Amino acid sequence: MARKTGSHSEITGPRIRAEAQRLFARHGFAAVSMRQIAAAVGVQAGALYLYTPDKEALLFDLLKTHMDGLLAAWAEEPKGEGARARLEAFVRFHIRYNLERAEAVFLSYMELRNLGPENFAVIEGLRKTYETELEAILKAGQAEGVFDLPDSKLATMAIIAMLTGVNTWFRAGGRLSRETVEAIYWDMVRKAVSA
Amino acid sequence: MARKTGSHSEITGPRIRAEAQRLFARHGFAAVSMRQIAAAVGVQAGALYLYTPDKEALLFDLLKTHMDGLLAAWAEEPKGEGARARLEAFVRFHIRYNLERAEAVFLSYMELRNLGPENFAVIEGLRKTYETELEAILKAGQAEGVFDLPDSKLATMAIIAMLTGVNTWFRAGGRLSRETVEAIYWDMVRKAVSA
Repeated sequence: MARKTGSHSEITGPRIRAEAQRLFARHGFAAVSMRQIAAAVGVQAGALYLYTPDKEALLFDLLKTHMDGLLAAWAEEPKGEGARARLEAFVRFHIRYNLERAEAVFLSYMELRNLGPENFAVIEGLRKTYETELEAILKAGQAEGVFDLPDSKLATMAIIAMLTGVNTWFRAGGRLSRETVEAIYWDMVRKAVSA
Repeated sequence: MARKTGSHSEITGPRIRAEAQRLFARHGFAAVSMRQIAAAVGVQAGALYLYTPDKEALLFDLLKTHMDGLLAAWAEEPKGEGARARLEAFVRFHIRYNLERAEAVFLSYMELRNLGPENFAVIEGLRKTYETELEAILKAGQAEGVFDLPDSKLATMAIIAMLTGVNTWFRAGGRLSRETVEAIYWDMVRKAVSA
């Protein structure tokens, strides 16, 4: 039966999230049962319900943990002075952070439809917060006269889609290193927004 | 029971595909049963198996029909003279064609993992054929001296990801018309690859 020691949730929480993320990413949220997640963690299904009320709450936990981590890491990222330096920092950060978390990124885009309206709104809000970070850089660059954009909102969406797309084709140990990819994408982004 | 008139498959094939696409896009491939698809079409489950051997074959049919349609439509698209005109044609075509088929595009990215290796290879091959169309334009532009790219393969992937990303946020009747969005994306792409 389910244990109820004080440290239980601290010990298994990260393992539950890791196994759920792996299974959701491989088979799809709808195809994975709480029983399968419990089996992968090595606990009874009942123990899983001590940690999370249901499967949607577990998905929400995964997506929110990912977005919280992304925002916290960006806040701590060294950014340099001026809009150009900050944009380069954003491009390199986004590629690096997302490549290191491919499963979480895949889930963030693919399984949003499985969140209820309230949970969806929370994740959308965090995503908008992140997008606003980039848009602020683009607007600052326009004010400085180093960027020229017909629409800072569309440029934000275009740049994020372009950068996140690296996850769909990049393979570690392939033709190009991650650092080279970062440099090439920065070159394209820099030109796309330049005055 | 299942009918077997000669015109049966011609009549229900497009309806089966339409209902399967709608259900897969809304609930995920794994969560939808052949029985549900049959009910949405208004036939017995047995009639569905006259059309397709199983659910994966139906998914493959959807993804292949989408890619075949994309390649055929691009082949017929007016493209103008020179790499710059052809790149503008590609940008506008890609945004327009994909916005009009949002469910099919979503499935194409999302449900690839549910294809077996042989079917996956077919879809990947069609996708590479399409990417090669764009890469050929970029290489031609480099040869003409109008484009300057550190890596035509990465530029191809970056541009396609950027353009396909429009599907995630564009709403008809929103702040910007599709034509305006096409023009703004063309401006960014043009600058990103320009010499």
